[in-house]
Amino acid sequence: MAVDTCEDNVSDRKFDIKELAELVDGEINGDFNLKISGFAPLETAVSGEISFLVKSAEADKLPACKGSAVIVPMDVEEGPVTLLRVENPYLAAAKIHSLLLEKPFVATGTHKMACVADSTVVPRQINMSAFVTIGERVTLGERITLEAGVVIGDDVEIGDDTVLKANVTIASGCRLGKRVIICPGCVIGSDGYGYATDNRGFHTKRPQVGVVQIDDDVEIGANSCVDRAAYGVTHIKSGVKIDNLVQVAHNVVVGENSLLVAQVGIAGSCRLGRNVVLGGQVGLADHVNLGDGVMAAAQSGIHNDQKPGVRLGGSPAIPIKQFMRAAIQYGKLPEMGQDLRKLKKNVAALQAEKEE
Amino acid sequence: MAVDTCEDNVSDRKFDIKELAELVDGEINGDFNLKISGFAPLETAVSGEISFLVKSAEADKLPACKGSAVIVPMDVEEGPVTLLRVENPYLAAAKIHSLLLEKPFVATGTHKMACVADSTVVPRQINMSAFVTIGERVTLGERITLEAGVVIGDDVEIGDDTVLKANVTIASGCRLGKRVIICPGCVIGSDGYGYATDNRGFHTKRPQVGVVQIDDDVEIGANSCVDRAAYGVTHIKSGVKIDNLVQVAHNVVVGENSLLVAQVGIAGSCRLGRNVVLGGQVGLADHVNLGDGVMAAAQSGIHNDQKPGVRLGGSPAIPIKQFMRAAIQYGKLPEMGQDLRKLKKNVAALQAEKEE
Amino acid sequence: MAVDTCEDNVSDRKFDIKELAELVDGEINGDFNLKISGFAPLETAVSGEISFLVKSAEADKLPACKGSAVIVPMDVEEGPVTLLRVENPYLAAAKIHSLLLEKPFVATGTHKMACVADSTVVPRQINMSAFVTIGERVTLGERITLEAGVVIGDDVEIGDDTVLKANVTIASGCRLGKRVIICPGCVIGSDGYGYATDNRGFHTKRPQVGVVQIDDDVEIGANSCVDRAAYGVTHIKSGVKIDNLVQVAHNVVVGENSLLVAQVGIAGSCRLGRNVVLGGQVGLADHVNLGDGVMAAAQSGIHNDQKPGVRLGGSPAIPIKQFMRAAIQYGKLPEMGQDLRKLKKNVAALQAEKEE
Repeated sequence: MAVDTCEDNVSDRKFDIKELAELVDGEINGDFNLKISGFAPLETAVSGEISFLVKSAEADKLPACKGSAVIVPMDVEEGPVTLLRVENPYLAAAKIHSLLLEKPFVATGTHKMACVADSTVVPRQINMSAFVTIGERVTLGERITLEAGVVIGDDVEIGDDTVLKANVTIASGCRLGKRVIICPGCVIGSDGYGYATDNRGFHTKRPQVGVVQIDDDVEIGANSCVDRAAYGVTHIKSGVKIDNLVQVAHNVVVGENSLLVAQVGIAGSCRLGRNVVLGGQVGLADHVNLGDGVMAAAQSGIHNDQKPGVRLGGSPAIPIKQFMRAAIQYGKLPEMGQDLRKLKKNVAALQAEKEE
Repeated sequence: MAVDTCEDNVSDRKFDIKELAELVDGEINGDFNLKISGFAPLETAVSGEISFLVKSAEADKLPACKGSAVIVPMDVEEGPVTLLRVENPYLAAAKIHSLLLEKPFVATGTHKMACVADSTVVPRQINMSAFVTIGERVTLGERITLEAGVVIGDDVEIGDDTVLKANVTIASGCRLGKRVIICPGCVIGSDGYGYATDNRGFHTKRPQVGVVQIDDDVEIGANSCVDRAAYGVTHIKSGVKIDNLVQVAHNVVVGENSLLVAQVGIAGSCRLGRNVVLGGQVGLADHVNLGDGVMAAAQSGIHNDQKPGVRLGGSPAIPIKQFMRAAIQYGKLPEMGQDLRKLKKNVAALQAEKEE
Repeated sequence: MAVDTCEDNVSDRKFDIKELAELVDGEINGDFNLKISGFAPLETAVSGEISFLVKSAEADKLPACKGSAVIVPMDVEEGPVTLLRVENPYLAAAKIHSLLLEKPFVATGTHKMACVADSTVVPRQINMSAFVTIGERVTLGERITLEAGVVIGDDVEIGDDTVLKANVTIASGCRLGKRVIICPGCVIGSDGYGYATDNRGFHTKRPQVGVVQIDDDVEIGANSCVDRAAYGVTHIKSGVKIDNLVQVAHNVVVGENSLLVAQVGIAGSCRLGRNVVLGGQVGLADHVNLGDGVMAAAQSGIHNDQKPGVRLGGSPAIPIKQFMRAAIQYGKLPEMGQDLRKLKKNVAALQAEKEE
């Protein structure tokens, strides 16, 4: 049988359900002495495992569950298995699952086929794979993981517990905070796209002498790019989560806990507030400011500043409700055109009669 | 003179034209004893080479051809060179050209600057370049090619005759079939984009413990990304061809022989049937199901399930014919607006007169 | 204090302001004997540094400037600091800043952990980092920089002063000119996306035996892809600047000094003239020809040939002015629909009365 998981769902450690309840501020209804060793979906959970249920409407699935406990919303009060009742089952599941998978950092040290410049001090607590390259004067925190093929330029700073996955490039001078995850193939700190054009159409490169700063708890998906600033910093603030193949241009600021879904493109000098959410393939023109909590539907194109909390859709983007109504009408454009032609004819006829 | 080909068009091997005719189920009209050693476009072919003609309307180009034979559609019956008449010249040309370029696999073995974990057994029939990294317990088939900079995680399985080009990353636990081609810079098995958000707006990562399964004869273009499932598998079925810079999110299933053109983005848990064709930059919202043979024009945005064979365009996507008519009308919107204002005025005048 | 620059703004070399004036064809008003050692924005410049001002309307910022000189447009005639008056301050700033940052090439040679095939001759004047792989018969010019993780296939040609940044892949047979910059993660010369499909829906790969040719002074951004031609060349002509995550398909020709902004996608066999500008996320269908100087707004989708100088927007793309007016009207579609329904009713009523 093929096993479709890459990590052991059942760890060696066991957790008291009381400990888990405390972590997620939940209430236990059932066996208070239960030991939990794994996490699995409701359908596949076995003894010792905990599952979750997002909505009380799905509570009829509980009797079939073969796991030992289920995280449920508060309005599910009783069940055939031990319940862990919480405000937000989705969030509680993420926290408990993460805890169950947690493994202590085991330092493997620096691989003999890694290449570190002389002026860089490598701490003992590191996992540095083969074919990693580190430039001069790089500052490395504790418990950093550098997978194979990672390239780190001169004068980079990397905080504790940060993970750079395979084939990531961090160009010179960039700064990464703590617990940052950079997925394979990402490029952080490539030159911004800036040229000055003469009157014959030739382009001269504008030197890009700024850096990228990535704050704590940021995650950036595979093959995404964050360009260095022309001057100063391109700044990804704490808690931001960026999906795959996203482009963040020079001098952009992305506010705390914002979400950039796959293939988003943000042009130069945009400033995003906190908890902005940009759907897949959204594009921002340069110098656009988005207030806190702005949300844009997939494929939107945003050209103008937006106030906090605004929801957008379309290209050029308009308020999402207006966009959804306009989009429905768009499909009716051909018959609207016909109606208009007919009306014009009829009205002209009425006018002609009038004049007779 | 610059030579604009990277491979020898004229190989040492020669093929009987009868052998080629058999491969493509074609009929020879001309020299049955011809030996073919190469393939070239009609304009540049020389003696010993075979060319092709897609449409009989282009048969007037045949007299100028200096090659030895030409693959033609069945309705071209005679010509000034030897003809190989087939149902589908385009397909026959691809098959014959591929055969002519075919080279026996010559195992170069494992480069001394590659890095393979102890528990992985490397077969003799392998081409492993410098700076390749392979994790623990990886299962490798026969005649695999691993170009420089490839990084393979723990517990990966790779089938016979598969090629991983330069700087490809295959994360832990992923499974690749036979004759798979993964182009440079691809990332297979990066974590899916999944977070649970608390009421203060902080995001907790949901563990992504599934894998990616890629079946036989799949090809994936440069710098594309296929994310591992949250649970279970992200599944690319046999014969699928994916272009460059494509994003396939967690838990997506792509049906057999589907085509995903460059920069397509597919959100989480979508299910595509067989022979789906998505044009460049198409986006799919999460959990969308597309039936067999669905086709979407470039830049479409698909939000809803689609029945087999449907053709779509636009964002949000509508049936392609409706989209094409609406798109024409879109350009006329300003004058439609003017017409409407004028009509409203005229009708109001007519009504006013009436009431007088 | 965190320093937000990755390069020393103040170099050891000092330049006479007269020398700088000559470089940019400018006029000095002030101290003709000034020595300039660095470049900085108006707000942060200090003694010895030169700044710039794009528009004369901003001349009120000059008194606060603490730098030694400011590049200004011609219509600023006098100021509290030494002025360098030029036609195009933006361009002059780029040229002067570049000069000030210029460093002599210091050859570090070939790193002992690089891997070069026997038949390739490496010139002395090279910077080749660790974990670079170079194939057979590669031709290398003078003063080339190859960062870590670069992979170069067989028979590649690379001109003088070209820079391949970290983890770049150049596939076999491709040709790069002089002073080319390829940013991290780029893939040049991956196979074009070409298949022939049989009547059961199975795809046969069409061999892609052409190459990519990149002329002098081209820059290509991070993680972009330029595919090799099916036959002949995919050709990026001199002075073209390509941003990050751009896709250029097989057999495309991009004319001199064209600009392709991030996430642009160009399908097979398109031909772009000189100084074409494609905004972010623009898509081109295959075989489209764009005349010199065509400009397309971000997210446009271009399906038809375009005459020189045309400006476009929308998907499918239409002339930009028409698009901007249509886009405004688009948001009014719901009320247009309402108006139409009302008008139809009113006109029907008028007609009915008439017939009575």
